[in-house]
Amino acid sequence: MTMDIEDVAWPAGFRAYTGQIGLRDDGADFSVIISDRPCVSAAMFTRSLFAGASVLLSRRHAAEQRTRAIVTVAKNANVATGTAGERNAGEVVDRVASVLGIPPAEVLISSTGVIGRQYPMPLIRSHIDAHLGIHRGAVAGTDPDPQAHAGFTSRPVDVATAMMTTDTHAKVSARAVGPALLVGVAKGVGMIEPDMATMLAYLVTDAELPAAEVDGALRAAVEDTFNCLSVDTDTSTSDTVALLANGAAGPVDAGEFAAAVREVCLDLTRQLAADGEGATKLLTVTVTRARDRAQAKRVAKAVLNSPLVKTAVHGADPNWGRVVMAIGKCSADTDIHPERVRVRFGDLEVFPRALDDAQLERLTTVMAAPQVEIGVSLDTGEAACTVYGCDLSDGYVRINADYTT
Amino acid sequence: MTMDIEDVAWPAGFRAYTGQIGLRDDGADFSVIISDRPCVSAAMFTRSLFAGASVLLSRRHAAEQRTRAIVTVAKNANVATGTAGERNAGEVVDRVASVLGIPPAEVLISSTGVIGRQYPMPLIRSHIDAHLGIHRGAVAGTDPDPQAHAGFTSRPVDVATAMMTTDTHAKVSARAVGPALLVGVAKGVGMIEPDMATMLAYLVTDAELPAAEVDGALRAAVEDTFNCLSVDTDTSTSDTVALLANGAAGPVDAGEFAAAVREVCLDLTRQLAADGEGATKLLTVTVTRARDRAQAKRVAKAVLNSPLVKTAVHGADPNWGRVVMAIGKCSADTDIHPERVRVRFGDLEVFPRALDDAQLERLTTVMAAPQVEIGVSLDTGEAACTVYGCDLSDGYVRINADYTT
Repeated sequence: MTMDIEDVAWPAGFRAYTGQIGLRDDGADFSVIISDRPCVSAAMFTRSLFAGASVLLSRRHAAEQRTRAIVTVAKNANVATGTAGERNAGEVVDRVASVLGIPPAEVLISSTGVIGRQYPMPLIRSHIDAHLGIHRGAVAGTDPDPQAHAGFTSRPVDVATAMMTTDTHAKVSARAVGPALLVGVAKGVGMIEPDMATMLAYLVTDAELPAAEVDGALRAAVEDTFNCLSVDTDTSTSDTVALLANGAAGPVDAGEFAAAVREVCLDLTRQLAADGEGATKLLTVTVTRARDRAQAKRVAKAVLNSPLVKTAVHGADPNWGRVVMAIGKCSADTDIHPERVRVRFGDLEVFPRALDDAQLERLTTVMAAPQVEIGVSLDTGEAACTVYGCDLSDGYVRINADYTT
Repeated sequence: MTMDIEDVAWPAGFRAYTGQIGLRDDGADFSVIISDRPCVSAAMFTRSLFAGASVLLSRRHAAEQRTRAIVTVAKNANVATGTAGERNAGEVVDRVASVLGIPPAEVLISSTGVIGRQYPMPLIRSHIDAHLGIHRGAVAGTDPDPQAHAGFTSRPVDVATAMMTTDTHAKVSARAVGPALLVGVAKGVGMIEPDMATMLAYLVTDAELPAAEVDGALRAAVEDTFNCLSVDTDTSTSDTVALLANGAAGPVDAGEFAAAVREVCLDLTRQLAADGEGATKLLTVTVTRARDRAQAKRVAKAVLNSPLVKTAVHGADPNWGRVVMAIGKCSADTDIHPERVRVRFGDLEVFPRALDDAQLERLTTVMAAPQVEIGVSLDTGEAACTVYGCDLSDGYVRINADYTT
């Protein structure tokens, strides 16, 4: 967590390209991550009924568990674009695969940005043909000096930057796993309450593992990390998370690998939450002593997503009563009894104890910190869950009141 | 809807008192509505697990269906106040009942405001004793000139004003029912997604009806009106709606009465939505051709409550794609197929048709109006539901970031 994300490099055998199609006025809006050798892979996608054309195509390709390249288009979601949108997604993947010299089924595509607009296909076509061919040598194993190519980047932070829409900074995380390295990049700070995966998050590693271990590690990690993230309760149509392992560094311990995947996913989750649209604070809610994990998560999300809790956290207003209000919304959880519930901010219990003026002042200080932790004990069992979000500011409104205009 | 709410008077036999305890710096914060004769009544309350002391007490009293007085305390919710809070609610009701000369079981109490603070009991006690006794004559039928008393008000708008917290104006609605009059008052523009009733809404009538008709009319109306209202997805701990009928005007047609109750509830619902905290626009979402009403309401609420839809409406940003995103969140509704969904703003279809620039401009105009209507057709059946809310502005954040400080 303390590393400088500028210094993170790709694991052995991975490289990336970033370039500007023109969807964004300044900077790269198109990126491709490539492994120079075959991978085993796992991926998860949004459960939205309006899943975008990229998700529909990538879901089919991901099922083969041998993804080795990921294309990302930023500033256009290619969602609600009908059969033309699906045809365009297919053409982009086919064209990238052809230029790189790999089968289309080994390529995923993700898009993020405005819903309801078609890709500018002439621009995309000419960009791929003009710039991406230089990486064919990587895939063919005939390119001794990738850094000589324009657009080549040895830094994951460049890909993370090319993926951004309303993000204010790039999100990268890395962990060593034995001889191997695990690197993750992610974007997405609005339309964020992932139901199956988050906006866009890619993890790549040179560890060598069976496909089942890769898949299991990703699914377990996502459940406790990205699926516990909410910026604004709005589930994206484009959510995609993928994990590619190319084996270049040799075998690693499966347990150690799963732990590293979880840590990288958690680190990226916290980075996304803290950079939530308009956010000034990272807000975490931990529910303990719940009947089961589902109850813990339901109550935690009710608190995390309450606009009144989020605005109170924004203003450091010691209005802790809004937390009990939010718990009260879980009216189907009839085993929760108000007289057995305890609520704390950081280490300071606020309910059921009655706060005196000095304690209210201390609560204001706790709520003014850049990280606010709310704890709720339900006394209905022994399960727990932590969820990640942010405060609600006028910045969120400003960003979203005129997004397309 | 076109009447001036300042001109609405109470139905025959009803009067009201408003006064200032001191919870609010300026203006009345305490009110009592009283019928000079027995009533039949119906009431509904929040389903919050943290229902306040007022709700717990009023729920017991309301079960007797003979409420004839309603006390309202504004600016203190008396919620999460434990046994002391319950004792205080009981004392306020007992004291009001004693001063008026009626049984405590005929009195309801509602509170609204900050959660987690005890009532200032010495202030409340002395206020009731000093000011309310003058209305005993109304109940005893021995007071020929109530208007001679300080604090007496013949105008429902004064009670609606005394109930307000963050409301910017009073909400009153009235309808004639044969020889009788039906008057409703309501408050509540934040912490508003009623699950069983809304923040505070009282309807009084001089119509004569059996208790079962009063109860049935209220329940049917609430389901389509207050229960279809959401300002911010936060369900209050204090929601109360009550209907009192004292029979002073004689019998009325039950069907005509039920229709009037529905109209008054709908009028108040729209007034509450349009005055949602920070709101600049009334937003309604109507889902048609749904499998059943539950599906229609679920999809409509998903659109109405999406912060991204609400901010787009606020900024009149023609970002209609966010509506399909919000529909997509209903991922359990697997019978909804994107290619059969249609979305419109007012009369302008935005999906699946592709909008040209002229149409996008027209959409911007439609979204800049003080009322924005979104229509969604699902093609899964014949059911429908309309829900009521508002846009999300920086005003909402400002109001709630420093509510208690």
